[in-house]
Amino acid sequence: MRELLRVAPGGAVDLGAVDPRSTPGLPGREVTGPQRKEWARGQLTLIGAELGRQQEMLFAEAKARQSAARPVGAAAGGGGSDAAAGGAGGRRVLLVLQAMDSGGKDGTVKRVAGAMNPLGLHVRSFGPPTPEELRHDFLWRIRRALPPPGYVGVFNRSHYEDVLVARVESLVPESIWQARYDEINAFEREQADAGVALVKVFLHISYAEQGRRLLERLDEPRKHWKYDPSDVDARARWDDYQAAYAEALGRCGTDAAPWYVVPADRKWYRDWAVAHLLRETFDTLDLGYPPAGFDVRRERERLLGSERTA
Amino acid sequence: MRELLRVAPGGAVDLGAVDPRSTPGLPGREVTGPQRKEWARGQLTLIGAELGRQQEMLFAEAKARQSAARPVGAAAGGGGSDAAAGGAGGRRVLLVLQAMDSGGKDGTVKRVAGAMNPLGLHVRSFGPPTPEELRHDFLWRIRRALPPPGYVGVFNRSHYEDVLVARVESLVPESIWQARYDEINAFEREQADAGVALVKVFLHISYAEQGRRLLERLDEPRKHWKYDPSDVDARARWDDYQAAYAEALGRCGTDAAPWYVVPADRKWYRDWAVAHLLRETFDTLDLGYPPAGFDVRRERERLLGSERTA
Repeated sequence: MRELLRVAPGGAVDLGAVDPRSTPGLPGREVTGPQRKEWARGQLTLIGAELGRQQEMLFAEAKARQSAARPVGAAAGGGGSDAAAGGAGGRRVLLVLQAMDSGGKDGTVKRVAGAMNPLGLHVRSFGPPTPEELRHDFLWRIRRALPPPGYVGVFNRSHYEDVLVARVESLVPESIWQARYDEINAFEREQADAGVALVKVFLHISYAEQGRRLLERLDEPRKHWKYDPSDVDARARWDDYQAAYAEALGRCGTDAAPWYVVPADRKWYRDWAVAHLLRETFDTLDLGYPPAGFDVRRERERLLGSERTA
Repeated sequence: MRELLRVAPGGAVDLGAVDPRSTPGLPGREVTGPQRKEWARGQLTLIGAELGRQQEMLFAEAKARQSAARPVGAAAGGGGSDAAAGGAGGRRVLLVLQAMDSGGKDGTVKRVAGAMNPLGLHVRSFGPPTPEELRHDFLWRIRRALPPPGYVGVFNRSHYEDVLVARVESLVPESIWQARYDEINAFEREQADAGVALVKVFLHISYAEQGRRLLERLDEPRKHWKYDPSDVDARARWDDYQAAYAEALGRCGTDAAPWYVVPADRKWYRDWAVAHLLRETFDTLDLGYPPAGFDVRRERERLLGSERTA
């Protein structure tokens, strides 16, 4: 799946050549017609369980490293994990989700990340920068949001907004956003070297499908909160956004941090494909449960010696 | 359920009077014997779905407030939520979990928080303070970890460690930890006033059950990473910890931020009870979907006008 959906490093990507309704990698001969959706949903459940297992091993690895680094006797009562201790290096996974409005980022988080244990998840959504964020470099808020070692991070939008909306809406001069592709590549290379396995996914929907989804949000009062008038403004600039995506995906689709284009008009395919990409990324980590950092037999004796007779 | 499990404000709680194997609130006449577990698991699924709905309305409310506060035209392309914008006030829910080692905090997060949408979850685990955290007041790291408006936060351990392990292990002088009960009450009152609905849960396990669970961790290599030799050290001070819990629960079980004691030897009861407490807390918020902050008919026209003929 990774080979199938991966953006070839280099120039701009031809997004027009990817059909948003297509289903690459889906075993087409055995599963056809309306059963495909059911099949993919069932597979998602299975893959989700596997993701949960991989996530636990990743978490266990980080905890074992943390315990090994701790001075003996320093930590009575503190068996828990510590998200605040993030900086220290160590493996983690980071799923970056980008899409046009209504492209399915939220749904993917719910379905795919929702299959994992929230204890080891680190989901961050990025909106328009706050005044404080604007006072810093565009990567400042991104660095602060990185998952700690052992965690699976999910970015719902990301630093790529700074070469997408910032470019299309001319929020900064061209010289600024032009420089950002290299800055992003350097940043992601640095993160990869620090142990972050990056999986960047562009959820690719069609213009027509976006129209249908936005209309649904307007016609269903319970979905009004998901609608923003600026969505239609951005839709008017669809081609500019597609061009900005094409360049970002091509220039920042690197070996250290590959980009994947997931056809996303069909939600069941989208969820199945993203889960698959995550599982394949986990596979490259070759995770296992860490060995005990203590004398098991001795601890067993201490524990049994603690039993109360009363 | 809230009335049944809630700690009466005032002096120390008599934890010895609460049987960790009991199942308060479980409809005992209709459901008996081994079916109780199955029944509770089924109910958890139903309650979980309801928690998901409530969570979405909470999230929607915060997003609508955010949109209303935004200058018109300021946010093209930024329809996402923004976790970094946390400070501004607005309603949210915060589940605080405390327990002895192996008391079931992690399992509760997995089962109960796992029923909700990770997009609107804000789970934080607190371990021994880092050197940086130690340079600040004990509430410093807690304030930084509060859920933004619209989110459901979960604290896996919390500021209560500073009147539990800090007291039992004499990490600070008595005058310091003695002052913290009032500091905690003032802090929680402040958070409640800012819109945080606090649900503080003590997962109450028995000494014997802790022994069984720690032994299981030692006897199952895949669980070795969950075991820490300091767990047995803390176990040796079981009575001191129970006394410290009793005082913390009694002195900090306030109207603004109630404490609940959940019998937790039976995992299926524990999960069901905590989910129930969360749902009842949501009910007090009387949530609904926010009205559209825009002219629906006009947006519909704009959207339909954007359709491409080609």
